[in-house]
Amino acid sequence: MRHIIDLSDLTMDEFNELYKLTSNIIDRPEGYTDACRGKVLGSLFYEPSTRTNLSFSTAMMRLGGNVVGFSNPNSSSAAKGETLKDTITMVSNYADMIVMRNPNEGAAKAASMFSEVPIINAGDGGHLHPTQTLADMTTILRLRGSADNMKIGLCGDLKYGRTVHSLIHFLANYENVQFYLIAPRELAIPEYLRQFMVEHQMKFYEVSGLEPVIPMLDVLYMTRIQKERFASLDVYESLKGTYCLTKAKLRDAKKELLIMHPLPRVDEIAQDVDDDPRAVYFDQARFAMYARMALLLTLSKQSRVRMPKHLIGMPNLRCTNPKCITHSETYLPMDIIHTKDGERCVYCDHLVEHVPEPEVSEEG
Amino acid sequence: MRHIIDLSDLTMDEFNELYKLTSNIIDRPEGYTDACRGKVLGSLFYEPSTRTNLSFSTAMMRLGGNVVGFSNPNSSSAAKGETLKDTITMVSNYADMIVMRNPNEGAAKAASMFSEVPIINAGDGGHLHPTQTLADMTTILRLRGSADNMKIGLCGDLKYGRTVHSLIHFLANYENVQFYLIAPRELAIPEYLRQFMVEHQMKFYEVSGLEPVIPMLDVLYMTRIQKERFASLDVYESLKGTYCLTKAKLRDAKKELLIMHPLPRVDEIAQDVDDDPRAVYFDQARFAMYARMALLLTLSKQSRVRMPKHLIGMPNLRCTNPKCITHSETYLPMDIIHTKDGERCVYCDHLVEHVPEPEVSEEG
Amino acid sequence: MRHIIDLSDLTMDEFNELYKLTSNIIDRPEGYTDACRGKVLGSLFYEPSTRTNLSFSTAMMRLGGNVVGFSNPNSSSAAKGETLKDTITMVSNYADMIVMRNPNEGAAKAASMFSEVPIINAGDGGHLHPTQTLADMTTILRLRGSADNMKIGLCGDLKYGRTVHSLIHFLANYENVQFYLIAPRELAIPEYLRQFMVEHQMKFYEVSGLEPVIPMLDVLYMTRIQKERFASLDVYESLKGTYCLTKAKLRDAKKELLIMHPLPRVDEIAQDVDDDPRAVYFDQARFAMYARMALLLTLSKQSRVRMPKHLIGMPNLRCTNPKCITHSETYLPMDIIHTKDGERCVYCDHLVEHVPEPEVSEEG
Repeated sequence: MRHIIDLSDLTMDEFNELYKLTSNIIDRPEGYTDACRGKVLGSLFYEPSTRTNLSFSTAMMRLGGNVVGFSNPNSSSAAKGETLKDTITMVSNYADMIVMRNPNEGAAKAASMFSEVPIINAGDGGHLHPTQTLADMTTILRLRGSADNMKIGLCGDLKYGRTVHSLIHFLANYENVQFYLIAPRELAIPEYLRQFMVEHQMKFYEVSGLEPVIPMLDVLYMTRIQKERFASLDVYESLKGTYCLTKAKLRDAKKELLIMHPLPRVDEIAQDVDDDPRAVYFDQARFAMYARMALLLTLSKQSRVRMPKHLIGMPNLRCTNPKCITHSETYLPMDIIHTKDGERCVYCDHLVEHVPEPEVSEEG
Repeated sequence: MRHIIDLSDLTMDEFNELYKLTSNIIDRPEGYTDACRGKVLGSLFYEPSTRTNLSFSTAMMRLGGNVVGFSNPNSSSAAKGETLKDTITMVSNYADMIVMRNPNEGAAKAASMFSEVPIINAGDGGHLHPTQTLADMTTILRLRGSADNMKIGLCGDLKYGRTVHSLIHFLANYENVQFYLIAPRELAIPEYLRQFMVEHQMKFYEVSGLEPVIPMLDVLYMTRIQKERFASLDVYESLKGTYCLTKAKLRDAKKELLIMHPLPRVDEIAQDVDDDPRAVYFDQARFAMYARMALLLTLSKQSRVRMPKHLIGMPNLRCTNPKCITHSETYLPMDIIHTKDGERCVYCDHLVEHVPEPEVSEEG
Repeated sequence: MRHIIDLSDLTMDEFNELYKLTSNIIDRPEGYTDACRGKVLGSLFYEPSTRTNLSFSTAMMRLGGNVVGFSNPNSSSAAKGETLKDTITMVSNYADMIVMRNPNEGAAKAASMFSEVPIINAGDGGHLHPTQTLADMTTILRLRGSADNMKIGLCGDLKYGRTVHSLIHFLANYENVQFYLIAPRELAIPEYLRQFMVEHQMKFYEVSGLEPVIPMLDVLYMTRIQKERFASLDVYESLKGTYCLTKAKLRDAKKELLIMHPLPRVDEIAQDVDDDPRAVYFDQARFAMYARMALLLTLSKQSRVRMPKHLIGMPNLRCTNPKCITHSETYLPMDIIHTKDGERCVYCDHLVEHVPEPEVSEEG
């Protein structure tokens, strides 16, 4: 483990070590007050995200470390036209670790190629956000003891919700996890995830109503449904009540149900649920901070590695994802992963296409 | 003492303890370098206020503590439509104390209802700003020894100046304080404060000129007069010179006069006053930092309290103050304080009105 | 040494001490982890500059100190109409040192007149940026052993580039430095610097091509050429390739050449140069942090000095530089330095002009 771009960068052994460390920190936080003393975290938020930003900063400070960086794209060097590569090279000169949020998909992977110090992906557009999944898993393991033999309901926007996709992937590491996928047709789970669950022998049920399945669940993971996802406002208005959790709908829920949400919520969980002891979404935010402490502490022990700065790729390939980092940072070498669906971009995991090779230019 | 929303949250014993601690810190700051080591202050500035923000941050750092937060509303989660309640719940999950500045009146009280950790009000609109009064009192006590038997001139905008109102309230705790209220008619002290001074046997004189009363004063508290307060620019221009303090006007002032100002000043105190040894407004800013150190240190010793999140109020009441926090954060339970003027909003202290009870909705 | 407004505030003995300390920190950083413990740096960035800001903040934190301030003019008190004098007086009340970046020329000098604590100039408009030169000199001395007997190429915008001007000035302290001044005619070195080099017996050659001189050089200092400097875009387009460094142009360069750049670069150094061991511009950024650590540590040992606040100048003089701080902060006393070119503004070093004395006003 060197960078955390995706949670799949961790082996299960590494994840279990990390969870053990997280648990130790939760139980005895005062033992870690000086664990990162003298270390500096570079915190680069190219788009605002108060929650994630505060969570990482607090985590570093509770380890006795320091934080420098920006939380606002307008105060960044990028405004002066600097490349991501140069910014990362500069910051990795100053800092011992870097946490980055960036609106371009694949930005974290790109950063990791040039950084002398570990990169933590705190969200690269709609692509990956591994420490959210780390927080989710910490919550489940800590409050339920295990993720095996679990019936989990995933409710809301299952089409675009990267949190949900990442959680499904990670739960493939556990035994007998059953999914209730609760979503309107417009926001149903993508086909490739259905295949993934089939291949991994994970049972799943797709349903359109929340209330009827609640009594079956051990965990209910709520997400937000965004108005903008619907063709018409009428359809949205007619549906949204169905996917809002209220106290009344919890009448027949299990006593040990865990109600989770990645936050911030808007109105998909009613205020009257907040005092229910099964509502653990605010605890989840606290576990997120502890999981990030464990991650920072683990990564801080790595030594600095000098990276080559000029990389040669495959100039006749182009990523088909318009939000991919390769379109704005054009010096990035194109590279691919072979999957059974075809050749996918090493940065953002979208399909690539073949293009005529550009003429050679020495200007770099 | 759990939160500091208003200075009236402190008993006189608690205030005296706090002042004693402040004095100790001023005399021996090096004894407090580690007093908040390992603690984190959440600093939530929903509107910019460099001075207050820097003062609190420095105070926390000089105690060996850390600070996370935002100084800019645009980088806050509020932009994503999160409620104040959820933001406070989240931050109180990460931080050990929270200092908040918010343009809505009553916001600090609202925050305190949901926070697991102490809330310090660093200004809620034009309503309250208790640590400014703490700084003012520290300055007076430290430089004069006592606030008893004091002739204090309050000059400038006495109608809207919350600093001045708060100081009058607090000085009711001392013996034989006499007020010279120096203001144009347009900006005279509100009637309820006149009544307050009468009830508390505090002598006061309302005058329209500054220069004639200066020789009588032990303390002169200057405030800014804002152009926008006047019906016409002509009236403002004709008056403003009267309420500007210059070196010439100090000719017959007492040798031990204290000239105070909450800062920032614009031109109500001329530059040629700055080197007068009686000009203590910059010292006042330094005392503010020490008073905040004492406050943070005292509050940091409290333990975390889990708060109920869903509160039921009086849905048939509505606050008449358009700037009240209850209008933007509509889940807040309306509650009242009975005063002899009528029923007042528990958040912002304005009168409430009766409205038809809204229909019950389960959506929270 | 009390403030660092210009590098000429240091004697050569002081500079050598500072470099020695910098070297010690580079060799043994762990020995300085607590060197500024309990100290606070006020960081006032009136215009964004991520690189300089992060570098100073990290430097302070690696000494165990703390940082408060702002990185964004919009969140500053200046928005409320506060003078620079009052802001500096306030911040010097809280902090133990102040680093300031300000778009007005002469702002750092103005700040130093009122500050109780040391001011470090992190750039005052296009005027001075002494810690950049400190970083440049640290890089040369550290990697080359000495700055004597050196052939240095300065390439790019030599007319407006303050970095380059400052470096020429400082290199007058060394023996047998020869300059190759590589620039288009439009951006040639100013006449006063030619005279300076003549007076100090420094050899220099002005050339318009980069490639031919590279083989002669021990150091090549690249800078950016801004499009906006040219009368027409056509001229810019036709020239820019000439002043871009590529791998190909380095074919006959010396093995021990140092390629430097103050960063951020845009495209004046091609990506294919980055992995050349002679490319030291990213190391230069790291040396900048260490040089700033040494500077902060040295300045932190000074004691607080109370400054007079009301200063009388020469009201019949006016600076001819429209960007001079004296035009926006009108209370600043005008004062001059006599040079052989005439009377120059003490703040921004431009010529002053005589004006009718303004009428006396007591309003300050």
